[in-house]
Amino acid sequence: MTAPGPTFDVVDLIRVKRDGGRLPDAAIDWLISAYARGQVPDEQMAAFAMAVVWRGMAPDELSRWTAAMVASGRRLDLGGLGRPTVDKHSTGGVGDKVSLVLVPLVAACGAAVPQLSGRGLGHTGGTLDKMEAIPGWRATLPLGRMRDLLAEVGGVICAASDDLAPADRRLYALRDVTGTVESIPLIASSIMSKTIAEGTSALVLDVKVGSGAFMTDRSRARELARAMVGLGTAGGVRTVALLTAMDTPLGRTAGNALEVAEAVETLRGGGPADVRAVTVALAREMLALVGLDGCDPAAALDDGRAYDGWRRMVAAQDGDPDASLPVARHVETLTAPTGGLVRRVEARAVGVAAWQLGAGRGRQQDAVSAAAGVRLLAVEGDRVPAGAPLAELHADDPVRLARATRTLAAAFEIGAAPPVGSTGPDRVLERITSAEE
Amino acid sequence: MTAPGPTFDVVDLIRVKRDGGRLPDAAIDWLISAYARGQVPDEQMAAFAMAVVWRGMAPDELSRWTAAMVASGRRLDLGGLGRPTVDKHSTGGVGDKVSLVLVPLVAACGAAVPQLSGRGLGHTGGTLDKMEAIPGWRATLPLGRMRDLLAEVGGVICAASDDLAPADRRLYALRDVTGTVESIPLIASSIMSKTIAEGTSALVLDVKVGSGAFMTDRSRARELARAMVGLGTAGGVRTVALLTAMDTPLGRTAGNALEVAEAVETLRGGGPADVRAVTVALAREMLALVGLDGCDPAAALDDGRAYDGWRRMVAAQDGDPDASLPVARHVETLTAPTGGLVRRVEARAVGVAAWQLGAGRGRQQDAVSAAAGVRLLAVEGDRVPAGAPLAELHADDPVRLARATRTLAAAFEIGAAPPVGSTGPDRVLERITSAEE
Repeated sequence: MTAPGPTFDVVDLIRVKRDGGRLPDAAIDWLISAYARGQVPDEQMAAFAMAVVWRGMAPDELSRWTAAMVASGRRLDLGGLGRPTVDKHSTGGVGDKVSLVLVPLVAACGAAVPQLSGRGLGHTGGTLDKMEAIPGWRATLPLGRMRDLLAEVGGVICAASDDLAPADRRLYALRDVTGTVESIPLIASSIMSKTIAEGTSALVLDVKVGSGAFMTDRSRARELARAMVGLGTAGGVRTVALLTAMDTPLGRTAGNALEVAEAVETLRGGGPADVRAVTVALAREMLALVGLDGCDPAAALDDGRAYDGWRRMVAAQDGDPDASLPVARHVETLTAPTGGLVRRVEARAVGVAAWQLGAGRGRQQDAVSAAAGVRLLAVEGDRVPAGAPLAELHADDPVRLARATRTLAAAFEIGAAPPVGSTGPDRVLERITSAEE
Repeated sequence: MTAPGPTFDVVDLIRVKRDGGRLPDAAIDWLISAYARGQVPDEQMAAFAMAVVWRGMAPDELSRWTAAMVASGRRLDLGGLGRPTVDKHSTGGVGDKVSLVLVPLVAACGAAVPQLSGRGLGHTGGTLDKMEAIPGWRATLPLGRMRDLLAEVGGVICAASDDLAPADRRLYALRDVTGTVESIPLIASSIMSKTIAEGTSALVLDVKVGSGAFMTDRSRARELARAMVGLGTAGGVRTVALLTAMDTPLGRTAGNALEVAEAVETLRGGGPADVRAVTVALAREMLALVGLDGCDPAAALDDGRAYDGWRRMVAAQDGDPDASLPVARHVETLTAPTGGLVRRVEARAVGVAAWQLGAGRGRQQDAVSAAAGVRLLAVEGDRVPAGAPLAELHADDPVRLARATRTLAAAFEIGAAPPVGSTGPDRVLERITSAEE
């Protein structure tokens, strides 16, 4: 990263972007590298990021930007595992425990799934936070051990190391405090630089759309999916995206231990129909990308192969798959104020309630409660009498219950008319593939 | 500035502006005050500033923003001087030595002119840099002494103290490195917050338009003038703006000592016709604003009153009005490559050449050469034979001559067709007054 090359005046580069221009390739390489090395101050990158929110990036400019972020750190080489590598990345939704089921499931079908994850911030939970609800389980894994597990078990969920796309790490923290998160090129390059750096050969993106997702608008979600598929393809990763509905929570739980339990049910062939359906759909895409279409993921859930993989995966990272999960000290029940049909269970409000109960963090450095969260006892389409239980609120700290109860109550809409949403168990809205496919 | 009041989440405020909204008054007050106190980091203000470049500000929002910048420091009270206060501010042009003539001229007519100035950066010179070419002259002046001089002599040119609009001081330095200078609301509030804080009761703005000015486009210059006139009026300062042409340098000199000499010629009733004309036009506007229209500024130039005021003003700040001005160690002459009519002498190139010769600074901390600069020997409309002298280049450091000569040569266009510009000595293009007038 310290190779000699042209240097640039950052103010000139900011001006080019501010005025709607395209940065030359060499300028992109220099800017990202200099920023990662601390040679471009945050105030200049903040102004640049806001200019990108304003002006966007041309597709080839964005590819170069993403490649420069990958080149700011190490790119893992996952060849020679004896299995084809394929990963899945979700843009985040309420109750999205899919990774916990999908990684051992696709591994059971013969692929290697290197799921390098992050922690949650805000109302959508993080996969590592969920896994850490399992007693003993550790998120960090040395690279050699990760390779061994990918070769033997086929699946790994662990923390991404600091040397993958370090420019993105710094930029993401900056965007978080400068109102520059909401930019499709910046979101796409952030996700894809980390995913390309992790060394997978193929990738399925689960782009959530709806009130509980980062993207509430379907056309914006489609735009993000197309940008990411383009970046993956340009980066040598075979990439497909599914747009999936996130207006109502996935499954019936939101919160770390509660979601692990629901994932385990699904791994044992049960679980909520929507969780199973979306997991199987994503698994089919992943297996197709690496030529393992011969394996039927639904069968692997039903015959115990996926669950067996899960147990090995958890144990390999010092987790006890048979241990009891943490239980909250306080559980309250929300009841229906009137009888009628549950027309809507609004995802975002459920996610915020779980977060208020302690399941998520407000700041990066906060700890999360493993046991806190929401269990839905009624979902869209259910008919409930007045006073019927709608949901349980789980918290370790009883002070958190009052506000979360108000939030959760507002998530439910009960009336006479039919449900607002009509996605049912099948949440897949659209499939986005590379133009080259 | 530490009064209790609401506090805000800066990220929320950035988002409001990013999405095209208007900040509530209390949020503006808080943001400016917190930034001036160092409680809002530069990266957040940089993102906010870029969002303002993008989205602009509503007129009442901009008034509040400017008032908050004034309130971030001290506002001088210049009442009780026995003279009405009126100032002039120019947005900066090449060869613009007007303040040196105008301040003693308007003072000689009975007004008090508190010209608190800055130093130059880039291709337009700063008034303080010019004055400092006078042996002994000092830019800093204690407030009490400034008041005495305003009462006795009527005119003061001195450095603005650090406690006037300190929020602007910090924001201006940030904008300079983040590509956020070019925003009409930010330029207007920066200029007007400092001018309102200096305590003048009336103000004439000289908004330069053309290649040598900050605003090259007339409609943008008009927009800036209107914004500033609106802010002055809202801030209790009677304000008028003149748009004046800056396609070719004002007068025949660009450079500190060279411009002082030309200003002195003008103060003695001579000098270039354009310098005299624009100075008299601005003086008439200033005198009209404070009810001193009875005084004829042209007469005050011709009968020695203005020059007498100049000598007292210079002497009061330890300058010797009779001392010889610094002379450059190296003078070269640029000659005409072909004969013909001088069709254009492009202001910006002349300014850049003077800067390259040492008259200006590239960075805030650089020193300037008092003697360096350009003297034009031919101006637009002159007919010259091949080999005729076009300009002198003055430098202390001979290394600077080669590049500046190339720059200056490119400023001249000689041909058969008539001159490109046709402003002649009268440079006033438009007069902008408050809607309330």
